[in-house]
Amino acid sequence: MPSSDQDDISDLKHVDMTVRELLTEMKDTSEVIIDLAYASLMYNSSTMAEKVRGLEDDMDDLKFATRYKVLLSSRTREDARQLSGILEVASAADRISDAASDIVSLLRFPPEKRPFITEMLSEADEKIRMIKISSDSSMVGNTIGRLQIEASTGCKIIAIKNRRGWTYDPEDEMKLRANDVIIVRGTDDGADLLVEYAAGRKEWEFEEIVPDDVIEDEAEEDLQNEEELSEEIRGEGDEE
Amino acid sequence: MPSSDQDDISDLKHVDMTVRELLTEMKDTSEVIIDLAYASLMYNSSTMAEKVRGLEDDMDDLKFATRYKVLLSSRTREDARQLSGILEVASAADRISDAASDIVSLLRFPPEKRPFITEMLSEADEKIRMIKISSDSSMVGNTIGRLQIEASTGCKIIAIKNRRGWTYDPEDEMKLRANDVIIVRGTDDGADLLVEYAAGRKEWEFEEIVPDDVIEDEAEEDLQNEEELSEEIRGEGDEE
Repeated sequence: MPSSDQDDISDLKHVDMTVRELLTEMKDTSEVIIDLAYASLMYNSSTMAEKVRGLEDDMDDLKFATRYKVLLSSRTREDARQLSGILEVASAADRISDAASDIVSLLRFPPEKRPFITEMLSEADEKIRMIKISSDSSMVGNTIGRLQIEASTGCKIIAIKNRRGWTYDPEDEMKLRANDVIIVRGTDDGADLLVEYAAGRKEWEFEEIVPDDVIEDEAEEDLQNEEELSEEIRGEGDEE
Repeated sequence: MPSSDQDDISDLKHVDMTVRELLTEMKDTSEVIIDLAYASLMYNSSTMAEKVRGLEDDMDDLKFATRYKVLLSSRTREDARQLSGILEVASAADRISDAASDIVSLLRFPPEKRPFITEMLSEADEKIRMIKISSDSSMVGNTIGRLQIEASTGCKIIAIKNRRGWTYDPEDEMKLRANDVIIVRGTDDGADLLVEYAAGRKEWEFEEIVPDDVIEDEAEEDLQNEEELSEEIRGEGDEE
């Protein structure tokens, strides 16, 4: 649909997000897109590669919206200096997503023609694994957020396949069902642990729910500690 | 030291690594360099930024060594096709490390001049946190590998500061001592859990050590399941 002359901006995606939201979204996308690109090679999946290309398009839209917002708000020399930093981070996130496109372009070779890549993926510190949730698993019926899968196993869920199809970078609210297939990134130890839970060989250990006021008090104390620490580190300069 | 005419290659770093090792190293470096770049902004640390620049130089050496190896082994048209894929992955990893350089270049602005960046880092899905290991913590005296910190809390240790100074991307063999400071990347839930352990408010739960033969049997079974799953996924084509 061609845009009208008076209102070009309404066609611009993400224009209602703040610069902060835009940057956060770009950072998160730059992380998931690389995982997904490696997963597409690992499982020779053109569906995942397609999603990587879709995310790269999103990234371009996000970068464009960020530039637009930044240019609109730059009034003074001081503004310009501050805002140029934002454009640099946006461009770094965009470079990362370009790298993801390079990675998925390798799908044009059949897996047997890229043995080095498969070996690299199986020897890296963090690996990609595909795991099926058994109907015996105590994970079934719980949301990702309630399970705190990443905090409990170190495995980040890159994608889930359930009856409805694939969901990439799923939200915490998503519920796991028997026979769902998840693709995760994690260390061997973490993935082995998750396999035990998913197969129902090990009972999920839910974190006790600590009352909110206790969490708040502790969080405040921790934050204070962290600020002190961070001052300590800063004071050191370049000694090593 | 200038290289002699006959033996230029002996000066080439990483030349004794295989292509597979080179690629794996590049992939791992491309991951840690981004975390470290964001951490340097988060804690305004020029020491960390220096390390990022060092890693970027390493990445250039790795890329150079990979090219050299690939060119040496490319004999036929078929070889060339296969090996060009390796160069693409190497270049993707290199692009990511360039993005890390862009990120640390923001250190030229003082923190108060880059508020958006700090906000972005505090709102991203995975955050950077700095945590001190208390002398009361049951983590003290154990290695990172024995604790399986990433599998148990989802937090990846980016750097450790102990009496000897900073260590970046520490090995599993490294032992934690009282008063060590660790910088981690993880979700809020995971980092909150790690803070509890590090402060000694929660006792570390060591994973039971399962006998090797049980692990091998299970691993073989899991691998078979994963191959079947992965066939299933491949068969699907592009439906979503």
